[in-house]
Amino acid sequence: MNTSLKIIRAEIVSVGTELLLGQIVDTNAVHLAQRLAELGISVYRRVTVGDNMSRLVTALKQALSNAEIVFTIGGLGPTMDDITRDALAEAMGERLQLDPAIQHRLIEFFQQRNVTFPANNLKQALVPERGHPLNNPNGTAPGLVFEKDRKLAIALPGPPSEFLPMVQNEVIPLLRDRFPDLGVIHSRVLRVTGLGESLVEEKIKDLMRDENPTVAPYAKTGEVHLRITARALTIPEAEEIISKKEAQIRERLDERIYAVDDEPLESVVLRLFIQHKRTIAAAESCTGGMLAERLTNIAGSSNSFLGGIVAYSNSAKIRLLNVPPERIESFGAVSAEVAEAMADGVRQVFGSDIGIGITGIAGPGGGTPEKPVGLVYISVAGPDNSIKTTRNIFLGQRNEVRIRATQTALTMLKDRLLSCKDDIIGDG
Amino acid sequence: MNTSLKIIRAEIVSVGTELLLGQIVDTNAVHLAQRLAELGISVYRRVTVGDNMSRLVTALKQALSNAEIVFTIGGLGPTMDDITRDALAEAMGERLQLDPAIQHRLIEFFQQRNVTFPANNLKQALVPERGHPLNNPNGTAPGLVFEKDRKLAIALPGPPSEFLPMVQNEVIPLLRDRFPDLGVIHSRVLRVTGLGESLVEEKIKDLMRDENPTVAPYAKTGEVHLRITARALTIPEAEEIISKKEAQIRERLDERIYAVDDEPLESVVLRLFIQHKRTIAAAESCTGGMLAERLTNIAGSSNSFLGGIVAYSNSAKIRLLNVPPERIESFGAVSAEVAEAMADGVRQVFGSDIGIGITGIAGPGGGTPEKPVGLVYISVAGPDNSIKTTRNIFLGQRNEVRIRATQTALTMLKDRLLSCKDDIIGDG
Repeated sequence: MNTSLKIIRAEIVSVGTELLLGQIVDTNAVHLAQRLAELGISVYRRVTVGDNMSRLVTALKQALSNAEIVFTIGGLGPTMDDITRDALAEAMGERLQLDPAIQHRLIEFFQQRNVTFPANNLKQALVPERGHPLNNPNGTAPGLVFEKDRKLAIALPGPPSEFLPMVQNEVIPLLRDRFPDLGVIHSRVLRVTGLGESLVEEKIKDLMRDENPTVAPYAKTGEVHLRITARALTIPEAEEIISKKEAQIRERLDERIYAVDDEPLESVVLRLFIQHKRTIAAAESCTGGMLAERLTNIAGSSNSFLGGIVAYSNSAKIRLLNVPPERIESFGAVSAEVAEAMADGVRQVFGSDIGIGITGIAGPGGGTPEKPVGLVYISVAGPDNSIKTTRNIFLGQRNEVRIRATQTALTMLKDRLLSCKDDIIGDG
Repeated sequence: MNTSLKIIRAEIVSVGTELLLGQIVDTNAVHLAQRLAELGISVYRRVTVGDNMSRLVTALKQALSNAEIVFTIGGLGPTMDDITRDALAEAMGERLQLDPAIQHRLIEFFQQRNVTFPANNLKQALVPERGHPLNNPNGTAPGLVFEKDRKLAIALPGPPSEFLPMVQNEVIPLLRDRFPDLGVIHSRVLRVTGLGESLVEEKIKDLMRDENPTVAPYAKTGEVHLRITARALTIPEAEEIISKKEAQIRERLDERIYAVDDEPLESVVLRLFIQHKRTIAAAESCTGGMLAERLTNIAGSSNSFLGGIVAYSNSAKIRLLNVPPERIESFGAVSAEVAEAMADGVRQVFGSDIGIGITGIAGPGGGTPEKPVGLVYISVAGPDNSIKTTRNIFLGQRNEVRIRATQTALTMLKDRLLSCKDDIIGDG
């Protein structure tokens, strides 16, 4: 099947002294390599050079002689050491010209912010005579496409917040359009929560032996991703191969697979809340607002997430969440009893259907033999005084404990909505 | 001062198709680059090639013509696609010969494990005629040093558990021994917030022209990092060069430099609150708990951060934060007036010295021509009805708008504490 696939060679040139010195890790190049692999474009080699014109031009000339497509990452900013634009023009023997539309957009950008237009920035409006810019809604530097002698050079900005959307929205469509008969390597990720990596692997070990599709597990904080990857001539063909494997995996793990591909757990949870027309509020101690932050990061969350209270101190728990002081005295602030009172309290304060309460010890200090660092109680309170509480001991440093706690909280919310469907729907 | 330093140039060639496909991140090369920088060895460029003999030989020849020392990482294993040993021999015009001691050790290694010696593994006992092996107690493949025409090529194994100890125990001592008068390259990062990259550069452009130290700006979401890098014979000497430049930069940017090296802004803010014995509480709408989450991610934050309220809905703003309903009606929920009422309200609810209120439109929906996506009002309320409010328009997607909003909020808290020092301290 593979032999009929056309081979397009690409080279990636990353630009930046900070990359050469090992001060930052080149995650952009890794991402681009993955995306190109999915398209069936072979990365011939990758080069990293510093902010030095003659070395960059040499690297670009070599790359252009090796590959049909050369990508550069970084060096498109407004400062003196941003030299990629000029280096590419030199390596390709091309000229740059001022693009009035981009110039206009740049000036407007600064005017809107009441900032004088810095003359430096003007060079970001330079584009190749033969070629075109790539739209960058997330920054001032457009991407650039140079075309000459059947070679394509594509210059992409370094900040990941600009680079990643540009790859997705500009580069991939451009490549698909330009090379319609590429084969594909296509993947689907099954997102699993509530089971560790080795348990997941044990359950599906025999399903991981094929060469097409392959199945690879990746451990993340609080979840495991199973990547199913197929090679085929077309995406639908690859999808079909993947779907067969997914069905087999779901037979073993179904209730623990919470989403497919990029949907994070908070988005799944919010979707369920919206589907079931239910509202939620959160009371957080050790997670300090992280659960609220995760939920509100999803656009449209305000339809279901009414709000939250971050209550670290006992007095805040008592005054704002109506936690009975005697519970804190008898059981301690980190206890199932206080988590339950917080969940119920926040539910009443916001008038939501569901309330969730989280109290624990995120560390590094504050642990005791009975209540070690990582101990977290999580309660979910619903209508009719129904309440469910878990006692967890999470491993890791402060931020990992907090991530795992919010992950478990979200899983409890999901399970609550899925398992008590009739109960909750009937309640409205 | 530089002229007395000898400049040694190195190039790193990483070998492995899995690196090219982006399946693993090349942390080995990042580590080696950092270690070389500490020694004052300049990494000229880095190249990644797949397991392909002719491409690897080409890359090695180019590297040997650029640099005095060439490092290879990976491809020393026993399988067919481990080609680095042969490729280096070819690129250097050297011969390999069997090293009886290594052969003996390999055979012993397998005997101890009751495994028949695989014939493939014999190639791991091949060493260059001119050169020597590097000890590898953690695996079967020794490292290799090739020497010819004043060039040094050092081949290192790919598994980090073998690579890292070999760098530490073999490579660093070898380089120190071979180049006794190497200097060091040392860096310091000034973290700047509240000014964009091009404005930062405009203010210090004339200070960025030296070759030693160099000054390079890096744009991050909501901040700019200025990296000052010096070459010198010793670390203290480099520190001195850096400090002089830092002093010049501080004259121009002082109030905007919030920290040096790795301390994040939330940590600086909490430190100031603790120093000034002041407490804070946060009322968040569009940032949805992110400010609370950032502050509570710092251990010990509970001493100053009393808590927060995430109030998306108008009713939550009215009931929990005592925002006057007529303000919301007259000015809208996203307005300076409501941000001020939120800041003052949360201050009173938690009984904190300072209250901060954030209201805005994070997007992607909800924008209008008058109130576009990215519009965020932030208010800081203190004792004596003192209040300061900013109107901001932040670029980017939902999460970036939220990050920039919390960044500005933290900057306002920092400025509040720094500028009103006496006022605030006197107030206790």
